[in-house]
Amino acid sequence: MDRLPSPAELEAEARRRLDPAIYDFIAGGADDELTLRANRAAFGRITLLPRVLRGSRTRDLHVELLGRRAELPVFVSPTAFHRLVHPEGELATARAAAKAGAIMIASMAATVPVEEIVQAGETVWFQVYIQPDRGFTADLVRRAEAAGCAAVVVSVDSPVFGHRERDARNGFHDLPAGLATANMGGRPIEFVPDLSWRDIGRLRGETSLPVVLKGVLHPQDAALAAAEGADAVIVSNHGGRQLDTVPASIEALPQVVEAVAARIPVLVDGGVRRGTDVVKALALGAAAAGVGRPVMWGLACGGEHGVGQVLERFRTEVDRALALCCCASPADVPRDLVRLPC
Amino acid sequence: MDRLPSPAELEAEARRRLDPAIYDFIAGGADDELTLRANRAAFGRITLLPRVLRGSRTRDLHVELLGRRAELPVFVSPTAFHRLVHPEGELATARAAAKAGAIMIASMAATVPVEEIVQAGETVWFQVYIQPDRGFTADLVRRAEAAGCAAVVVSVDSPVFGHRERDARNGFHDLPAGLATANMGGRPIEFVPDLSWRDIGRLRGETSLPVVLKGVLHPQDAALAAAEGADAVIVSNHGGRQLDTVPASIEALPQVVEAVAARIPVLVDGGVRRGTDVVKALALGAAAAGVGRPVMWGLACGGEHGVGQVLERFRTEVDRALALCCCASPADVPRDLVRLPC
Amino acid sequence: MDRLPSPAELEAEARRRLDPAIYDFIAGGADDELTLRANRAAFGRITLLPRVLRGSRTRDLHVELLGRRAELPVFVSPTAFHRLVHPEGELATARAAAKAGAIMIASMAATVPVEEIVQAGETVWFQVYIQPDRGFTADLVRRAEAAGCAAVVVSVDSPVFGHRERDARNGFHDLPAGLATANMGGRPIEFVPDLSWRDIGRLRGETSLPVVLKGVLHPQDAALAAAEGADAVIVSNHGGRQLDTVPASIEALPQVVEAVAARIPVLVDGGVRRGTDVVKALALGAAAAGVGRPVMWGLACGGEHGVGQVLERFRTEVDRALALCCCASPADVPRDLVRLPC
Amino acid sequence: MDRLPSPAELEAEARRRLDPAIYDFIAGGADDELTLRANRAAFGRITLLPRVLRGSRTRDLHVELLGRRAELPVFVSPTAFHRLVHPEGELATARAAAKAGAIMIASMAATVPVEEIVQAGETVWFQVYIQPDRGFTADLVRRAEAAGCAAVVVSVDSPVFGHRERDARNGFHDLPAGLATANMGGRPIEFVPDLSWRDIGRLRGETSLPVVLKGVLHPQDAALAAAEGADAVIVSNHGGRQLDTVPASIEALPQVVEAVAARIPVLVDGGVRRGTDVVKALALGAAAAGVGRPVMWGLACGGEHGVGQVLERFRTEVDRALALCCCASPADVPRDLVRLPC
Repeated sequence: MDRLPSPAELEAEARRRLDPAIYDFIAGGADDELTLRANRAAFGRITLLPRVLRGSRTRDLHVELLGRRAELPVFVSPTAFHRLVHPEGELATARAAAKAGAIMIASMAATVPVEEIVQAGETVWFQVYIQPDRGFTADLVRRAEAAGCAAVVVSVDSPVFGHRERDARNGFHDLPAGLATANMGGRPIEFVPDLSWRDIGRLRGETSLPVVLKGVLHPQDAALAAAEGADAVIVSNHGGRQLDTVPASIEALPQVVEAVAARIPVLVDGGVRRGTDVVKALALGAAAAGVGRPVMWGLACGGEHGVGQVLERFRTEVDRALALCCCASPADVPRDLVRLPC
Repeated sequence: MDRLPSPAELEAEARRRLDPAIYDFIAGGADDELTLRANRAAFGRITLLPRVLRGSRTRDLHVELLGRRAELPVFVSPTAFHRLVHPEGELATARAAAKAGAIMIASMAATVPVEEIVQAGETVWFQVYIQPDRGFTADLVRRAEAAGCAAVVVSVDSPVFGHRERDARNGFHDLPAGLATANMGGRPIEFVPDLSWRDIGRLRGETSLPVVLKGVLHPQDAALAAAEGADAVIVSNHGGRQLDTVPASIEALPQVVEAVAARIPVLVDGGVRRGTDVVKALALGAAAAGVGRPVMWGLACGGEHGVGQVLERFRTEVDRALALCCCASPADVPRDLVRLPC
Repeated sequence: MDRLPSPAELEAEARRRLDPAIYDFIAGGADDELTLRANRAAFGRITLLPRVLRGSRTRDLHVELLGRRAELPVFVSPTAFHRLVHPEGELATARAAAKAGAIMIASMAATVPVEEIVQAGETVWFQVYIQPDRGFTADLVRRAEAAGCAAVVVSVDSPVFGHRERDARNGFHDLPAGLATANMGGRPIEFVPDLSWRDIGRLRGETSLPVVLKGVLHPQDAALAAAEGADAVIVSNHGGRQLDTVPASIEALPQVVEAVAARIPVLVDGGVRRGTDVVKALALGAAAAGVGRPVMWGLACGGEHGVGQVLERFRTEVDRALALCCCASPADVPRDLVRLPC
Repeated sequence: MDRLPSPAELEAEARRRLDPAIYDFIAGGADDELTLRANRAAFGRITLLPRVLRGSRTRDLHVELLGRRAELPVFVSPTAFHRLVHPEGELATARAAAKAGAIMIASMAATVPVEEIVQAGETVWFQVYIQPDRGFTADLVRRAEAAGCAAVVVSVDSPVFGHRERDARNGFHDLPAGLATANMGGRPIEFVPDLSWRDIGRLRGETSLPVVLKGVLHPQDAALAAAEGADAVIVSNHGGRQLDTVPASIEALPQVVEAVAARIPVLVDGGVRRGTDVVKALALGAAAAGVGRPVMWGLACGGEHGVGQVLERFRTEVDRALALCCCASPADVPRDLVRLPC
């Protein structure tokens, strides 16, 4: 089809195309997938109360994030193994993101070297799990910096690996033959259960890049992040893939925003499928909203073109939602545009 | 059947009769249709707490609206293209509304000239989208006024066009061959994203008709409407067809009523299917409640007779609901007759 | 089966045995049947918080109601046309109620003369709709009094007749040939929309029986009932058969109890299916709880024996629920045994 | 499969293996099974709000309970008739519990003598229903004490026997031929409806074992338990098998914890299926969480090995959940790690 597919249509099409175990690996969540579903359901319970007769002829969707301009308040959340669903992998994603003017967060588990991703892309942030070998981690972050990444995103929600029933049932434990991560030098990605604020401080000393903490849900941690010098936080439950039964990230957002008190930008991901979701996130204080699985479905269905369609749909929908709310830009979205469920 | 069909039966019958794409065009809503469903579900969560032993022998259903008498507190909400479902189109609707003593709001997208609608009808209000060509808009409003319309209803919830997945999927973008709007002089209907209160003020200077603003949900806009001289507001989410995930209109009603503080009448539409829905709207402060899709299903099933059955069912049901609540008239419905969900 | 059937099993069996239109007439409710379902759902949301280590060897289930002793806090709510489902009709019901020691409220629409019902039964109350012909009504009440009825129950929730889609669809408007009401002298039952407190006062002057008002939901009416000299009220929505979308009666009970302030007994019916429902009603301040449809299903399945099984199940279940809550009797049920949903 | 089956997979497998009436006896609950389902649903509505960057390299799952050390905060709740599902019965369960370091509460209705259970196990508590013959009860408790049990658990939620529709429907009233309880000397287990705090006091005088009260839900009873010298309470609704429509035990926990005010430990069971459930119970103030049916499913599927898999899954999941919340041990779980639904 040449019209932009709806989120549900796109996922259905990707499901048709992908090996079921790969589809499950991407679609699935931890344990009983309650948080996975909550991420989506929560957006449906939050309503927009649009204003009238105060709109502008056009909308300006751009946002400034960590000193860089993005053309829309939607970023590509880090997801692993893009070549699992398309031979061009992260290259295709980066090109589509660049064309859309969206920030892409490349995963440490990317299947394309970070240098090539940055070259294909525009604004690329690099996500890392701090490894037991802190020296290796520092080297990798410096490599990302040298490649031109604009920020380093540290996942803090993964002291251990989440358990996903679908992968266990499918026996999906390793990448298929011929596919490997491209930035780990053959090492497996490991998790550090006793990762601490000291590790964050140390990393800040090892790079001049802004340091973003991804996976903050508790307002006390958000306050600590601001106090400890993080440059931004991403409210995220890892797409419902780490600890099951945590709140939808959009539900956790307001208290994080309140705790951070505008000291640093707050981003959010998890369950973002529609332009209205993005506008709700903006109204609740987020600087931008990330999308993960939809990008993977677009990549699976059409490579760069598919990802481009996803981002174009978001651009169109955010623009339309802002227009229908009579907001001229992301910065123009007031708090009282949303009503939270009681 | 000669008994009055229930709302569900009527819609089912219309669905059987109509081309699926036309059925979808009328039945559908924006994006994921959450607001479409919310409009209906919200009425089910609001309960009536009837009084006893204070009823009257008969009920008087009439209401006064903008200086005109209507025989029942139910009006025909504006919907486009009535000839899409019945060859007599808005003529049939107008005749049925007149017979029922219900106010009809004719759409700018009517498929019958406004003069003929007014002649076939009784109290007709004319709905407009203010067009980029303000002169054309003024001329059209003056034409409606000259034709005998009793009010002009400006849609303020449509700075851009809502996105409806069903129409996209069905490729339903244009009227079928041989069918056209009858009041636009061959022009397409356009939307003005930067429509403002100034445009409303200008229109008020161009007509002596009362000006009603349709599509107000936010209490601040309701307060502004009263302050800026609007003669009434209609709390509406456009039948869930413009911005998805806005509240059910009946849920937005109480705050609008509070903000307006009795300065001007407040009307409401969206999800009204039963007489009890109308009584709930009255109890929450509405002067009348509008029905859209049911009128279209009646028209599709039986032309003027079909619309008449729909309005007759509303008359019967509102009368019965008032009787069962021991209320003698719409004005006699107290606020504490309804309980809102907590 | 010789074990006592569960409520669901009993209804299923009755449905198998009855003409579908008759089943629908009994099972159905008004309009969209939201209140019908709410009656049942509401009990499921109210929880019992049982006490421990304070029980008694046996429970005493009797209650005193209007000066008479009933052996259990469950009464037979008035329902029309018992001969519709069993040839012995109200006689069978009365015998079973007498054997169980339950108060039976015989309907004005009974298909057996009130004298015979009272003779077959023990404590029988007589329900009336006050008729346009007040003299006829007074005569009928006096006849019931002479027959030995212990109270007169005036339905105040029926100023007009409720609309039931099932009956409309089934064309079920009249009793089958050979079946008629037995106490109306061939007259149809009529409804009086302007029934008033004066009519209640007049009736009180025409009988020495206690006067019970059935169908009170609004706390203001409950307060009025106590002030106007009613001897008891029954919180009821007529089994969801009159005005749809009114609250579940168990939800309306607490405010009625508060408004009545112990001046007169408050009874309740609607959705009572289990012994725990009865205990919840008691905890919320009801003197007893009524059952309607289950009695009809028992009657349909086994006449007197079937009704006896229903009442025996209630006796067993109320006894068990009280035992499991460590309450010795209906009077021993404290308010804090229940938790209302927030 | 050699991976650990999920709770749903394990129950499905047990269902395949067991006689349907036996499966129903274990799986079923009282009346309409609302509490049975509520136990599970309630955990899903409580969310965990994990902390970050404060974890430890490893977790220490041990807890101290009544002076004994358990290796994990999960205990085996008492369930009857283990030989009903596996020939080794409670022996297999005790061995698996011992291997896992979990406290096992052996049921008075065990099908293996308590001496053998204790010998096969490690920390075994013995559950009793105080019998009409108090002397027999005292003898049995002393026998359990002599056998080496570490506590006596008195069920206080069973003044009478709960009604279970499944068992009634299946005619499941007695143990199959060849199977009998092993500690009752051929007597049936009886219930004492007028059991009182005096009986608890008397039992305390008859044993030097700690006395645990199981089945407390009401905060007033919890306060009494602490005042009357109970050594611990277990918040439990008997797996939804006694009084239907009582709250989920995890919902009743917070008020019990508040009422007990840290004077004695509070345990909980009912619907515990995942490590996250255990962590929620800990955060809400429980000292440990019990599992009943999952142990029976494990036993049915694989005897000692099957139970071992269930407990190993709990160990793994509690460890992972604590790690993902950055808690080092059960004692390290703060109250604000959970959010209750409003």
